[in-house]
Amino acid sequence: MLGPNRYGKAETRLVRVHRDGESHGLVDFNVSIALSGDLTATHLTGDNSGVLPTDTMKNTVYAFAKEHGVGEPESFALLLARHFVHTQPQVHGAKVSVESFAWDRLGPHSFRRRGDHVRTTVVTVTADATQVVSGVSGLVLLNSTDSEFHGFVEDGYTTLKPATDRILATAVDARWRHAGDDTDWAASFEGSLAALVSAFVGTYSYSLQQTLYAMGAGLLEARPEVAEVRLALPNKHHYLADLSPFDLENPGEVFIAGDRPYGLIEGSVVRDDAPAATAEWWL
Amino acid sequence: MLGPNRYGKAETRLVRVHRDGESHGLVDFNVSIALSGDLTATHLTGDNSGVLPTDTMKNTVYAFAKEHGVGEPESFALLLARHFVHTQPQVHGAKVSVESFAWDRLGPHSFRRRGDHVRTTVVTVTADATQVVSGVSGLVLLNSTDSEFHGFVEDGYTTLKPATDRILATAVDARWRHAGDDTDWAASFEGSLAALVSAFVGTYSYSLQQTLYAMGAGLLEARPEVAEVRLALPNKHHYLADLSPFDLENPGEVFIAGDRPYGLIEGSVVRDDAPAATAEWWL
Amino acid sequence: MLGPNRYGKAETRLVRVHRDGESHGLVDFNVSIALSGDLTATHLTGDNSGVLPTDTMKNTVYAFAKEHGVGEPESFALLLARHFVHTQPQVHGAKVSVESFAWDRLGPHSFRRRGDHVRTTVVTVTADATQVVSGVSGLVLLNSTDSEFHGFVEDGYTTLKPATDRILATAVDARWRHAGDDTDWAASFEGSLAALVSAFVGTYSYSLQQTLYAMGAGLLEARPEVAEVRLALPNKHHYLADLSPFDLENPGEVFIAGDRPYGLIEGSVVRDDAPAATAEWWL
Amino acid sequence: MLGPNRYGKAETRLVRVHRDGESHGLVDFNVSIALSGDLTATHLTGDNSGVLPTDTMKNTVYAFAKEHGVGEPESFALLLARHFVHTQPQVHGAKVSVESFAWDRLGPHSFRRRGDHVRTTVVTVTADATQVVSGVSGLVLLNSTDSEFHGFVEDGYTTLKPATDRILATAVDARWRHAGDDTDWAASFEGSLAALVSAFVGTYSYSLQQTLYAMGAGLLEARPEVAEVRLALPNKHHYLADLSPFDLENPGEVFIAGDRPYGLIEGSVVRDDAPAATAEWWL
Repeated sequence: MLGPNRYGKAETRLVRVHRDGESHGLVDFNVSIALSGDLTATHLTGDNSGVLPTDTMKNTVYAFAKEHGVGEPESFALLLARHFVHTQPQVHGAKVSVESFAWDRLGPHSFRRRGDHVRTTVVTVTADATQVVSGVSGLVLLNSTDSEFHGFVEDGYTTLKPATDRILATAVDARWRHAGDDTDWAASFEGSLAALVSAFVGTYSYSLQQTLYAMGAGLLEARPEVAEVRLALPNKHHYLADLSPFDLENPGEVFIAGDRPYGLIEGSVVRDDAPAATAEWWL
Repeated sequence: MLGPNRYGKAETRLVRVHRDGESHGLVDFNVSIALSGDLTATHLTGDNSGVLPTDTMKNTVYAFAKEHGVGEPESFALLLARHFVHTQPQVHGAKVSVESFAWDRLGPHSFRRRGDHVRTTVVTVTADATQVVSGVSGLVLLNSTDSEFHGFVEDGYTTLKPATDRILATAVDARWRHAGDDTDWAASFEGSLAALVSAFVGTYSYSLQQTLYAMGAGLLEARPEVAEVRLALPNKHHYLADLSPFDLENPGEVFIAGDRPYGLIEGSVVRDDAPAATAEWWL
Repeated sequence: MLGPNRYGKAETRLVRVHRDGESHGLVDFNVSIALSGDLTATHLTGDNSGVLPTDTMKNTVYAFAKEHGVGEPESFALLLARHFVHTQPQVHGAKVSVESFAWDRLGPHSFRRRGDHVRTTVVTVTADATQVVSGVSGLVLLNSTDSEFHGFVEDGYTTLKPATDRILATAVDARWRHAGDDTDWAASFEGSLAALVSAFVGTYSYSLQQTLYAMGAGLLEARPEVAEVRLALPNKHHYLADLSPFDLENPGEVFIAGDRPYGLIEGSVVRDDAPAATAEWWL
Repeated sequence: MLGPNRYGKAETRLVRVHRDGESHGLVDFNVSIALSGDLTATHLTGDNSGVLPTDTMKNTVYAFAKEHGVGEPESFALLLARHFVHTQPQVHGAKVSVESFAWDRLGPHSFRRRGDHVRTTVVTVTADATQVVSGVSGLVLLNSTDSEFHGFVEDGYTTLKPATDRILATAVDARWRHAGDDTDWAASFEGSLAALVSAFVGTYSYSLQQTLYAMGAGLLEARPEVAEVRLALPNKHHYLADLSPFDLENPGEVFIAGDRPYGLIEGSVVRDDAPAATAEWWL
């Protein structure tokens, strides 16, 4: 029998120029939409009488960008998600995801694309509930000291030596679930990002797990509107180069940046009184 | 407070040559391991007394490849997952994922890598339950006719014209959950792959959803050991080129292969008497 | 002052269905066009009176696909390149590159995309000369034995141990220049590919350079229409896993497939009486 | 017969921490080395007596990073290239390429990786000559107005409408050849980058070719040590969304960011009295 299902348009690339004043504003989004609801007929017989085309979803993104303007990704995603649920009776749930790419201003109408992280949001709207998740991906951070790793379990396959001074580096992939759906999204994102970075920088680390928890707890402390934080932190290993064959010492100076394999640390930090999630999200 | 968490080594690249006879055998895997259990101490204080290093997990992959040989990815993943749960008391769950890359034989010890799909497995072992999921990703299929799409909902943002003859193309990403943990994995995979392909080819399609359901149902019909199938099918749009400005007709002959955006159809087909999943899996 | 320059449309994605018989034919190309000629005005003053829009080049690809059909990539590239040089007086040279993606037939109008290699061509046409280069990229080959590497130079930074039995693996990137512009392109490509593979498989190798030369020489021997072969062969290192800490031997059985760094061997094999190249090409 | 050839180690990933003071310094390079010279024997017979292993090249990168420290990429590449030519008599030429990844400082030993561009260098050393090329890739720039495109050639395949106000966006890939081999590389790079950006921002553009020339000429004007500039500028098309079906105007506000195809404009600007290049370089 047909189990859970959804469909939509993925990766609609929207660039919105706001020409309201002398300086142009620029918004650069990648929008993905997935709708669920009463879709049995199209699966079983190809009867599409309940199927809003994914092409229409794409059109709606561009039309809404004109009609409503485009501000914070959470607001635009809420607008779209509510539209589909409220106007299509057969649609019971809408999930709208946005990747937002930042640009630095070079002049009144000139911009340079930043590449240090992608801001994300996933909004899920049903008749009963609205859930907003914000996040960041691709933020690469590195501490060149103040990281140790020892005291671990050793079994018959363990050869790792304890480390008392190592590089700790990761590409932060974080998502945080808001308790409500009405926040100053820009301030919330900037504050959350700053809290994550500050905790990474400020934690003398005995494991990447410890750093992960500090990052999640730091975000919860800084942002009362957030109920829960989830992080996936690859341990971007930097191996100390063995220079002893060349009669050279290497006191934490020359490193091989490894590609694969990598450690992957995943965890969540939840506010004690957090309301329950109303939709599956991430990890 | 600390919420759900896990950690492990991702993307350990293993190549195993079996030199048992005159012809060498070749196995090419990408192995990812994630362990969960009693990991609060390392998160809160950096006490690693319960942390088996991810480096050890990597070593175990290579050592087991020698000690046990490497056959089907499901078997190797089960071996690894059980090892960690059974030998580390603080580890309550192990999730082992394998990507398997196929090679065609060119000679007794010569091979050419195929690139038409990746075979996947995700095995989750706890004290109480074992769950095996098999899958395929990156399998690109195309029907150049026998696909229509019309009769859909039209709202104020709909401009799509009904199509009575279009290209239907997708990159199959499928996962299927086995009811048990003891199967002829090789035959099961080959049969499942054949069932998916056969249903795609044999379905006169009025929507990609219909094709998705046919693929899932076809797999369940062919393979009694499978309890549930999940599919994510991007609609790789092929747009008919508008040649009318050049006084040329284009009766389904010349197409623009689009990159983004793309439709994304996700759904599952579940056997009526399927046992419940014992671990979260995919989608 | 303005130096060498050219411009064009890159990566026009063309899919052509030939519906001539009961079985459909399918051609899948990625076409890039670059024109050079009298283009000083647009560079210096933005006067575009000599600039054929790149959008027009894209249109021409789709229109020609209908008007002329699409066969071998070399033929289609020649057709396009000659068109621009012959119809635009200010265009003195046209370079047309095609990536061709192969599909295996599953039925009269059903196909599965192969992923084991990409067939390439680069055609350069001027008033005076026509040059056709064919090639292949992404073809991954592996010999699990019959490869040694020793007798090399050792300086103060050398730690590599001689190897008398190793895996030799590479991702073949090869281009070959034809002496003329009128050949059975399909047979030529198939024969060239077979010669490359055969030489890789059949060479007992003391260095990847030796294998490279054998591949180039084998192609020249097999295909009299080819004047010169160039190859870039990454040495996809497979490191023998050190299992001695676990009291396990590893006689060429368990390997770590490395990502970076990799050896890169580049070379050419030229027929003694080869005519000179008429345009810069590759490497 | 054997034609031109070279070999080496590609993509050695080096991270160098300088711990000289209270604040750590961080250098992050991807180093590729290619040597040429008397290499006939290994190609023809597998005699490796003239082959310095690529593994040794990798070791040399790490050892030199300790012995000499790592400053500007041009200096490090020169050091390496000269070493191989001067210490290996059979090596006649060395080409060393470096990709340099910038990190922003977050604290005395904490860093965030920037992603807005990659700084590159390619150094070629022979007994007779030294050539240094610097560059930048992946720098994405956008003007939301002050760009037009009209007055172009129209043939039978032209459907493009003239544009009097469009977005102009590109991902700058630029290389510039220095007249000498002894410059303040840091200042030269920063000045060159600033000149490129300034010309892009400051040029009212009638074609991307015009902008390209302005960028090259601007760099030559700003940096007397540079002899020649080459640029490859993809025209990252932003298509105005057609909102007329929804009774909405779109005066340059809502754009579809396209992936493929894209225009590709390639050109060079050469100082009138530029010395000739001594090695092939780019484009």
